[in-house]
Amino acid sequence: MRISVDVQMTYQFPQPNTVALVLEAAHAPGQQIVRESLDLGDARVTRIAGDSGVGQRIWAQVGTEMQLHYQAQIDIARPGPDLSGMQAAPLHALPTEAAPYIRPSRYVQSDKFVSFVGKRFFDLQGGAKVAAIRDWIEMNLSYVPGASDSDTNVLETFAGRQGVCRDYAHLFCAMVRAAQIPARMASVYGPDVTPQDFHAVGEVWLDGGWHLVDATGMCGPESMALIAVGRDAYDIAFMESQAPATLINQGVSVIRA
Amino acid sequence: MRISVDVQMTYQFPQPNTVALVLEAAHAPGQQIVRESLDLGDARVTRIAGDSGVGQRIWAQVGTEMQLHYQAQIDIARPGPDLSGMQAAPLHALPTEAAPYIRPSRYVQSDKFVSFVGKRFFDLQGGAKVAAIRDWIEMNLSYVPGASDSDTNVLETFAGRQGVCRDYAHLFCAMVRAAQIPARMASVYGPDVTPQDFHAVGEVWLDGGWHLVDATGMCGPESMALIAVGRDAYDIAFMESQAPATLINQGVSVIRA
Amino acid sequence: MRISVDVQMTYQFPQPNTVALVLEAAHAPGQQIVRESLDLGDARVTRIAGDSGVGQRIWAQVGTEMQLHYQAQIDIARPGPDLSGMQAAPLHALPTEAAPYIRPSRYVQSDKFVSFVGKRFFDLQGGAKVAAIRDWIEMNLSYVPGASDSDTNVLETFAGRQGVCRDYAHLFCAMVRAAQIPARMASVYGPDVTPQDFHAVGEVWLDGGWHLVDATGMCGPESMALIAVGRDAYDIAFMESQAPATLINQGVSVIRA
Amino acid sequence: MRISVDVQMTYQFPQPNTVALVLEAAHAPGQQIVRESLDLGDARVTRIAGDSGVGQRIWAQVGTEMQLHYQAQIDIARPGPDLSGMQAAPLHALPTEAAPYIRPSRYVQSDKFVSFVGKRFFDLQGGAKVAAIRDWIEMNLSYVPGASDSDTNVLETFAGRQGVCRDYAHLFCAMVRAAQIPARMASVYGPDVTPQDFHAVGEVWLDGGWHLVDATGMCGPESMALIAVGRDAYDIAFMESQAPATLINQGVSVIRA
Repeated sequence: MRISVDVQMTYQFPQPNTVALVLEAAHAPGQQIVRESLDLGDARVTRIAGDSGVGQRIWAQVGTEMQLHYQAQIDIARPGPDLSGMQAAPLHALPTEAAPYIRPSRYVQSDKFVSFVGKRFFDLQGGAKVAAIRDWIEMNLSYVPGASDSDTNVLETFAGRQGVCRDYAHLFCAMVRAAQIPARMASVYGPDVTPQDFHAVGEVWLDGGWHLVDATGMCGPESMALIAVGRDAYDIAFMESQAPATLINQGVSVIRA
Repeated sequence: MRISVDVQMTYQFPQPNTVALVLEAAHAPGQQIVRESLDLGDARVTRIAGDSGVGQRIWAQVGTEMQLHYQAQIDIARPGPDLSGMQAAPLHALPTEAAPYIRPSRYVQSDKFVSFVGKRFFDLQGGAKVAAIRDWIEMNLSYVPGASDSDTNVLETFAGRQGVCRDYAHLFCAMVRAAQIPARMASVYGPDVTPQDFHAVGEVWLDGGWHLVDATGMCGPESMALIAVGRDAYDIAFMESQAPATLINQGVSVIRA
Repeated sequence: MRISVDVQMTYQFPQPNTVALVLEAAHAPGQQIVRESLDLGDARVTRIAGDSGVGQRIWAQVGTEMQLHYQAQIDIARPGPDLSGMQAAPLHALPTEAAPYIRPSRYVQSDKFVSFVGKRFFDLQGGAKVAAIRDWIEMNLSYVPGASDSDTNVLETFAGRQGVCRDYAHLFCAMVRAAQIPARMASVYGPDVTPQDFHAVGEVWLDGGWHLVDATGMCGPESMALIAVGRDAYDIAFMESQAPATLINQGVSVIRA
Repeated sequence: MRISVDVQMTYQFPQPNTVALVLEAAHAPGQQIVRESLDLGDARVTRIAGDSGVGQRIWAQVGTEMQLHYQAQIDIARPGPDLSGMQAAPLHALPTEAAPYIRPSRYVQSDKFVSFVGKRFFDLQGGAKVAAIRDWIEMNLSYVPGASDSDTNVLETFAGRQGVCRDYAHLFCAMVRAAQIPARMASVYGPDVTPQDFHAVGEVWLDGGWHLVDATGMCGPESMALIAVGRDAYDIAFMESQAPATLINQGVSVIRA
């Protein structure tokens, strides 16, 4: 599938500022960047590798206003495999790249879910357990914009039973990690995200590779363009600014090309 | 039912100390104190009314060691009514004594459970909803001594799905309050508590009165002797000491007389 | 001092609703209500005593829109005594009305501050300690609207070092309770509150009575009209509604008459 | 400096188990492993790289009892440079290996400390700010074994003002990250740790490299043997076991050789 991404944003800051931007589609397995451009005006730009080597993190030194325009065409050829048939690695076979992702993080206190996951999904293993967790979350959570904020953690989401994509993905990671299966947070572009915006999903380590899983049910793996990964929402924020950022305008468009 | 209570405890402190004790059976509806004695050695004792006027709180000025012996015989004639048939008061009919108990407290963040309770028990009202909540908790939690501590809050219990009587009662209060039905924490003696100890349960406001409910399933209302009530575990602690207290020995015996 | 209070508010709800209102000046020591009126249109009103018997809590059964107009003239003759010279009661002399207010609550985890308060103010007692805590908070916190929200607890405020009146009062109560001196939250009207709004302050138990203390430094006791008291912000909210409330307009005016 | 490390431990598990062990001194700059041996009996051992490529994480497949004996001689030739004279990198110059360590983690909610650090250390930059933060923590915290547990987070430590090495290091990382300077958690062996045990300290990114900093004041960089690094205590736990682990015995000896 080919998708076209167009992101425009203007932010203002009280003084010249350095922001971290993580919003370009990654050069990663399963997707190919056909065409891409990033216009940041006269900002000075430094790039480093993204977390776990996925994508890039941009340091942009901007003035009191940042105008950004990102465009890309991406061919996605990622299979949407049946999770249920996939195997989880036993702990002793977890490689370096996957091992950190069975541990809790700022918003994902997976250590608190060991007992729940053990009881609720005790009879399932590997991909079948992951699939059941995904289904459980989609069934038990309601997608309610405004019901959470950037400080909401996964204990609150589990009790509150509502949230947005960020909260769905956090809870998914929490439960999967509680089952000792590596799960990380991923930011993606998807044409079926409603309303259109940056989207957060989970990614699990099964059959020796990473697989995107959207607990909101909005996107399949074959239609998601991966941007970045990390332990939780903090690691994949599309923009991080220490100075207060005033939103002037922001638009994200993702369409099937 | 007549029960006999015998509590012995010895604690040591690094310096002379004032402790709060809340451990005598209350003179309250549904139970009659036939005989009672409290021996605190040469401690100086002051008494004030307990929270919401239930029972008494004792200030005991002790030396570096406190030896306590409490004995009581209590006749309990409390009906074990069918919760399911009872009515919850509409908000505008909640009296002064019940109104505070729909609000959250230190360990009972009931505000976080409004959505879950709304969805899970949407089709039930009043006592039937309370009964369903009680059953849900007994079914979904495991009684695991050591799985929680005195700092565990109800969000952790809800995710962790295990705990002791304190945690069961907290979660019960959280969910019932989230349904806008007053629920408070109660400490009781019961002959069927295993292992024998002070016991914590919930108490709900239905049909214009308070009704004891034990989410662990250990005790029925007809066999519980009420000690004290409050918003959560903090308010009903059998002993509170600012100085570190070293347990020398403690025994709680409750038997059918 | 005589002050005039004028509160107008309009809220809308998705369906007919029962709200709790706590916004009338209390008939309480140190202040006299000269004239008062509350217009709630055709809402049906029930009144119960406020927490700890201070003021009244109103249950208002409203339609999909609530229009409220409250007016009052209040004579305040409350001394602004020197806290430093006042005595704290020893624990064993705390009466029933004060004892609950040395315990933690939903947003005020005072149990976590025992060590800090013990170290930082170790050489002070009673009112002098309370005054030093108040001064410490005013000096170390910045008043920053928007820096906190209704879910911010006192651990976050203590680390964040900023907030609004609610956060100042929470931190004040936390530290004073950690010193085993009763402290509760109070809502008040004050002509010097900037910007004009409902205001939250602390109230401490010294010399056998309650004394208002404003850690923001905006108001002295002689210019505050007491509305309600409670353990923390939850207990003194001017309006509580289970249904989502849409603010149409709200204005609070408090002037020296 | 040459040090000798000797670690013995015996744990029992209810069933055969896979544990993660992170306890060997790392082959890392500033220290050289002269001799080392790890005896895990008949456990099957797999090794992967540690977080950020420092040291190794061992997966040990053990039976119902694990007996471990680790011995090493390590030459440490790590300068103990004057932090105060060192430079922090501007954000846009943070490399891939340092960038993740300005973000919060499970126990280190550094996002909550931005305002406190901004106010308290506003006049300092780079290494001088780091040194002042270290000194502030040593001065304001008390080392109190038992005052915290494995679930204590940095907000609680900041309010509670006491803890053990883990809590000192967490608070150090929180404040340094809040200043936008990378800080990570490190586990080390040190001959001056009292009582002898695994020790946790901070590591900061200054002058383009990592520097060990012990906020407890027990150890200088010249006497610490680095084991592992990570975002917080979870990443550097010397043993992680999903099954409950019963401690039979454990001894850590570190002496100047």
